[in-house]
Amino acid sequence: MNKSTFYHAGCPVCVSAETSLLELLDPTNVEVINLNTSKDKLTEAEKYGVQSVPALVTPNGQVLHINFGASIDDLK
Amino acid sequence: MNKSTFYHAGCPVCVSAETSLLELLDPTNVEVINLNTSKDKLTEAEKYGVQSVPALVTPNGQVLHINFGASIDDLK
Repeated sequence: MNKSTFYHAGCPVCVSAETSLLELLDPTNVEVINLNTSKDKLTEAEKYGVQSVPALVTPNGQVLHINFGASIDDLK
Repeated sequence: MNKSTFYHAGCPVCVSAETSLLELLDPTNVEVINLNTSKDKLTEAEKYGVQSVPALVTPNGQVLHINFGASIDDLK
């Protein structure tokens, strides 16, 4: 199984979702990317279809937008 | 660890999220409830803070609204 990617931006909603979700998933199978500090990853995230954070991109490429912290546009 | 609860309503967005998410979680630790067919669970879901489906309520009571399929009000 490939890894999932959890995109966040350090916002309270993001941290809260990350804490809850990563408790349920196998942390070794999740790459966590902070788009606020790693702006070079914004293009990649958009390519996957991420429109807002926090979001989890599953190994099969589906984007699960979880609650709402910030839109991708606001991070540019 | 207590179980998580995945609320859905049979909608395409719900089914898609369920398929992706339950592949990543341990299915034995997730109770799946269809609020469209189990309307007696609507009150419980609202009590947890579920506003739309699909949504995952974690063992610690946090609600993760995942993408957007339908609002709880539309299921009543």
